[in-house]
Amino acid sequence: MTLTLGYYNGEIRDAEELQIPAFDRAVYFGDGVYDFAMVRNGKMFAPEDHFERFLNSCLAIGIDTVEPGALKSEIFRFCAKMSEKVTPDFSLYWQASRASAPRSHVPPEGGKHNLLMFASPKQVGDLFSPLALRTVEDRRYSFCNVKTLNLLLNVLASRAAAEEGCDEALFHRGDRVTEGSHTSIDLLSGGVFVTPPADEYILPSVSRKHLIALCKEIGIPVEERVFTLDELFEADEVIVASTSLLCRPVDSVNGEPVGGKDPALYKKIADAYLARYLRETG
Amino acid sequence: MTLTLGYYNGEIRDAEELQIPAFDRAVYFGDGVYDFAMVRNGKMFAPEDHFERFLNSCLAIGIDTVEPGALKSEIFRFCAKMSEKVTPDFSLYWQASRASAPRSHVPPEGGKHNLLMFASPKQVGDLFSPLALRTVEDRRYSFCNVKTLNLLLNVLASRAAAEEGCDEALFHRGDRVTEGSHTSIDLLSGGVFVTPPADEYILPSVSRKHLIALCKEIGIPVEERVFTLDELFEADEVIVASTSLLCRPVDSVNGEPVGGKDPALYKKIADAYLARYLRETG
Repeated sequence: MTLTLGYYNGEIRDAEELQIPAFDRAVYFGDGVYDFAMVRNGKMFAPEDHFERFLNSCLAIGIDTVEPGALKSEIFRFCAKMSEKVTPDFSLYWQASRASAPRSHVPPEGGKHNLLMFASPKQVGDLFSPLALRTVEDRRYSFCNVKTLNLLLNVLASRAAAEEGCDEALFHRGDRVTEGSHTSIDLLSGGVFVTPPADEYILPSVSRKHLIALCKEIGIPVEERVFTLDELFEADEVIVASTSLLCRPVDSVNGEPVGGKDPALYKKIADAYLARYLRETG
Repeated sequence: MTLTLGYYNGEIRDAEELQIPAFDRAVYFGDGVYDFAMVRNGKMFAPEDHFERFLNSCLAIGIDTVEPGALKSEIFRFCAKMSEKVTPDFSLYWQASRASAPRSHVPPEGGKHNLLMFASPKQVGDLFSPLALRTVEDRRYSFCNVKTLNLLLNVLASRAAAEEGCDEALFHRGDRVTEGSHTSIDLLSGGVFVTPPADEYILPSVSRKHLIALCKEIGIPVEERVFTLDELFEADEVIVASTSLLCRPVDSVNGEPVGGKDPALYKKIADAYLARYLRETG
C-alpha cells in the first residue's frame, strides 16, 4: 500500500478520504485543466515548464481566478507536506476546475476555481526497459493542445492497450501518428529526432520540449513534422516520452517488432535526459 | 432560491452539501456518462427512452456494473423524495462514473460505478418564445453520439453564446450544422422536417426522436440528412429541441434574422409535442 495525499482548496488529507462538493464543475462537465510533475528529493523537476503550461491551460478555457503566486505557494506547501509525511520522491497531480455551482452549461458569474491535488510515491524507472504499444484511431477533439479534464477517450485507449497486454496506446488520425494516451511519441530516423508538430492534435509535452532541447545540445538534428504509421514501423527507434517515464524505447506495436536499430543514439539521448533530471532534482 | 436535491450512491441530501470522493473518476477524467429527463406531477416523461439511451452510453464506454432494475429503482426513489420534499415538477440529472480509485488511465479491476443525481425545480416553458443562436465551430470529438461527461467544449460554446446575449450555441463542422451545445437543431424547409443523421457528430436526442415520430403521425415528411449553415439561414423555420425545452423556434443567428416563414407548421408540431408531454405526465 502506498499512501497518496490529497489536497482540496487548502485542506490536506489521505487522498482516499478526501471529499469534494458534487457541485464542482469538474464532476459533471470536466470543466477544468490539470498538470502533472515529478518530485525527487522534495524538488520538482522543470517546475516553470509545468506552471507555464498549466497557466496557459487555464487561459485557454477562461479560468481567470488562478493567481500564479498563490498557486505555486500552495503547490510547494503540499509538496513539503508529502516529503515530510510520506516520501520526498513522488508524482504530483494538480487540477483547477472553473467553479462549484448547480449544473448549468453557462458558467456562474464570479465563480472561483477549485484546486485539487494528489501526491503519490513514484520514481522514474529504467529508461531502457522497452514498451509495447497498441494502435488506436484518434477520435478526440481538436483541442488536444490544452491539458483538460476531458480524458475519456484517453482512458478508453489506455484500457484497449492494457487489454492486449500493451503498455500504452498509440493514437493515429488516419495515417498520421499523433501521440500516446498520456505520452508523446517520437522517432529516431536516419540519425534525426522526428517529433510531431505542436498543433491542436497533440499536447505540448514538457518531455518532448526537453528532448528537442537535449538533441539540439548533443548535435542531433530535430524535425518537427507530421509522420505516419508506416514511417513509425520503419523508424530506427520509436520513443515514448512523458513526465513520469522521461523516455523509453518501444519494441513492438500491435505485436509487431519496431525500432531497436539505433540503440546507441537512443542511449545518448536517454543518458542526457536522465542526467539533467538527476542534476536538477539532486 | 430553489432547492436542488442531490443523490450519491444511496445518500440523499441538499445538493449544495453533497460531497463525493475526490477519487471518483468523474472528477479527474470525466470517465462517465449521464442522462437528463423532465418530471411533471412526479411522473418522468419518456422514461424508457432515457433509460435506454443511458444504458447504451454505459455500454459504449464499458461501464458494466449498472443493473437496469436497481438503477430505475434508485431513480424512482429519488424522484419520489423530490416530489415529496420540494416539488413534483423538476428536472432530473443522473450520471454514472466508472469507479473510484487512485488516478490511473487504465481503469481498476473490479471497480463499481458511482451513481450521482441532481433534481432541480423546473417546468417546460413557452414553446413559442423564440431563441437567439450564435455559431461556434464544432471541434468536439467523433464520439458525440455518446452522452459522456466530457463536456468542456459544450461549456465553452454555451459561454461564448451567452457572452453575446444569445440563448444557445449552434455547432457546425465547416459548413455542416451538427447540433446545439445541449440541444438538437432541426429545420422546416418547404413543408419538410429536416434533421441531421444520427452519426458520431450528434447526440441521439430524445426530443429529436419524438419530433420525428410526431411529424410522421401528423403527415409531415421527414428527411434525416446533413444540412449546411446556408440551408439553415434559408430555412422556413429553425427549431431547437431538447428535453427541458421540448421545442422552440429560432429567430436569429449571430444577430441575423432566420426562420419565421412557416409559423403555422411549427405550431402544429409544437402543439402535438406539448400535448404528448402533458398527456404522458398528466
